[in-house]
Amino acid sequence: MPRPVYFDCDTGIDDSMALAYLLASPEIELVGIGAVHGNVSATQGGRNTLQLLQLAGRRDVPVAIGRNDPLVGEFDGGAPHVHGRNGIGEIEIPETDMTPVNEDAADMLLRLSHEHAGALEVVAVGPLTNLAVALQRDPSLAERIAQVTAMGGAALVPGNITSVAEANIGHDPEAAQAVVSASWSVTLVPLDTTLENVLEEADRLRLCAAEHPLARAVGEMLDYYFDFYVAEYGRRCSAMHDPLAAAIAVGGMLPRVAPAVPVEVDVTDGPGRGQTVCDLRGQRQGPVDHPGANVRVVLETEGQLAPQLLERLLAMPVPAAADRVA
Amino acid sequence: MPRPVYFDCDTGIDDSMALAYLLASPEIELVGIGAVHGNVSATQGGRNTLQLLQLAGRRDVPVAIGRNDPLVGEFDGGAPHVHGRNGIGEIEIPETDMTPVNEDAADMLLRLSHEHAGALEVVAVGPLTNLAVALQRDPSLAERIAQVTAMGGAALVPGNITSVAEANIGHDPEAAQAVVSASWSVTLVPLDTTLENVLEEADRLRLCAAEHPLARAVGEMLDYYFDFYVAEYGRRCSAMHDPLAAAIAVGGMLPRVAPAVPVEVDVTDGPGRGQTVCDLRGQRQGPVDHPGANVRVVLETEGQLAPQLLERLLAMPVPAAADRVA
Repeated sequence: MPRPVYFDCDTGIDDSMALAYLLASPEIELVGIGAVHGNVSATQGGRNTLQLLQLAGRRDVPVAIGRNDPLVGEFDGGAPHVHGRNGIGEIEIPETDMTPVNEDAADMLLRLSHEHAGALEVVAVGPLTNLAVALQRDPSLAERIAQVTAMGGAALVPGNITSVAEANIGHDPEAAQAVVSASWSVTLVPLDTTLENVLEEADRLRLCAAEHPLARAVGEMLDYYFDFYVAEYGRRCSAMHDPLAAAIAVGGMLPRVAPAVPVEVDVTDGPGRGQTVCDLRGQRQGPVDHPGANVRVVLETEGQLAPQLLERLLAMPVPAAADRVA
Repeated sequence: MPRPVYFDCDTGIDDSMALAYLLASPEIELVGIGAVHGNVSATQGGRNTLQLLQLAGRRDVPVAIGRNDPLVGEFDGGAPHVHGRNGIGEIEIPETDMTPVNEDAADMLLRLSHEHAGALEVVAVGPLTNLAVALQRDPSLAERIAQVTAMGGAALVPGNITSVAEANIGHDPEAAQAVVSASWSVTLVPLDTTLENVLEEADRLRLCAAEHPLARAVGEMLDYYFDFYVAEYGRRCSAMHDPLAAAIAVGGMLPRVAPAVPVEVDVTDGPGRGQTVCDLRGQRQGPVDHPGANVRVVLETEGQLAPQLLERLLAMPVPAAADRVA
């Protein structure tokens, strides 16, 4: 029996990779997707997600639009310099007649948490606003969720939108603080490890040559992302933020160093705003879990994501044309 | 001509090591020492410093007592669990009739900055309160100082008094922010590198066997410090926080990775209070200086401090008894 997963995303190039990874993983079943502000607006992210599902012949997966603004402040316009103006590297993929469902993402998450009480897993790869809104509407949500895996934060490496803040957390620190302090089990996948899992140009070209239209689209949109990452790595390649969180959630990737420690998100207006303040003192002799800590911070993974990401995406059965065109 | 140095300290076991290193270094001349709250009270730190100078036969070096409280709040009682109740590992060293000079540390620093205008270097290994008070009294101080080297902060490693704050900065964040934002050149020596420069038990025993009474006293007080560091390293040894800053200031140790980057101290009341927020983004391909940044953050050193610290301390000429007993 595949485990039921609610996926929350701001699609986004690496969100698209994460979506493809989840669709290609028999261990889990995507029972619902929520879109949130972040790389793009929630509306644009939802549209991208629907088009990608259509490409994959997965018209059965419901998509809900969620919050377009963080809990405090407003959507900042996204990251077109990273993800392109349309969020998917400015590639064109077919329009779809699929539409978002008639509930918002937080309500979808709450409904699914009842339908799959105790079993539902959450994979969140954007700002955590939808999760926080759901917790506000019903704090008992936390009890019905088996596991939350979130791409976000920077523990012992610099941030990517400020010196210390990573984009997903920094774009809604208040939501992130609500999520890490709720009484559920959270696995945080921060820049410490996502920046060490890199997709190279040769990998990308294998995706571009795929027969599966979603795998091929991912390869094509990565062209834009690779340009952005030249400044970081000195060559065309990319970090794999969101797909690493997806792979850890699925179980395809295993954390190697991932202590459960106190985590507090900085919600001040100081220079640390948006930082995931993780108490990683005393870990020199090996990972040590703090009793009662509900957040596990993934600092290193077993092996590299690229080989198995390629394996999964390239093994996806190509959908019949009838499945993917309205 | 030895370069004139003002040394600001909260003596302290590793402050004692730093003092010994400076006294053993012909490149510089200690023209004044200020005591500040931190590991112990400013008064106790001043007393310890005078006793150590007496042991070294250096009755000529003036010691001024400085601020016993941070700019905001009050002295917290120090760190007897790290440095012992008397700050020097609870060893007993001879009383001295030497007394502090009749000016406070900030005024001493200001006076020396005029007497050695453009040449005076500052080595600070405690909270930066005295330096901040001097800047408050006369902001033009910064123009007359050739270099400030401060042990403090944690850039990409955990703090040692909170998840992100190192003791010297965390015990007076407002002072530290005043110091890093003044228009002088600051070299910050944070936990990132001081924790990687370790003194081992065999090193300590060589100090204990020294003929020079100050070298021997340092070896003996380190016994206490070594016990504290078992929790960090899993064996009896110690980090060398303050002596590393001294050695870098003198030029005995060279920084290997030390980019000049924007640094802001978190002075909020949030979880990041006392953090040295260093903008270390974009350094993956090698150290990159930010134009105009006045703070250099030492992340790695060339080689290890222990061999040359031993060499310097063990080569100090033993003072005549008449020099060291009143």
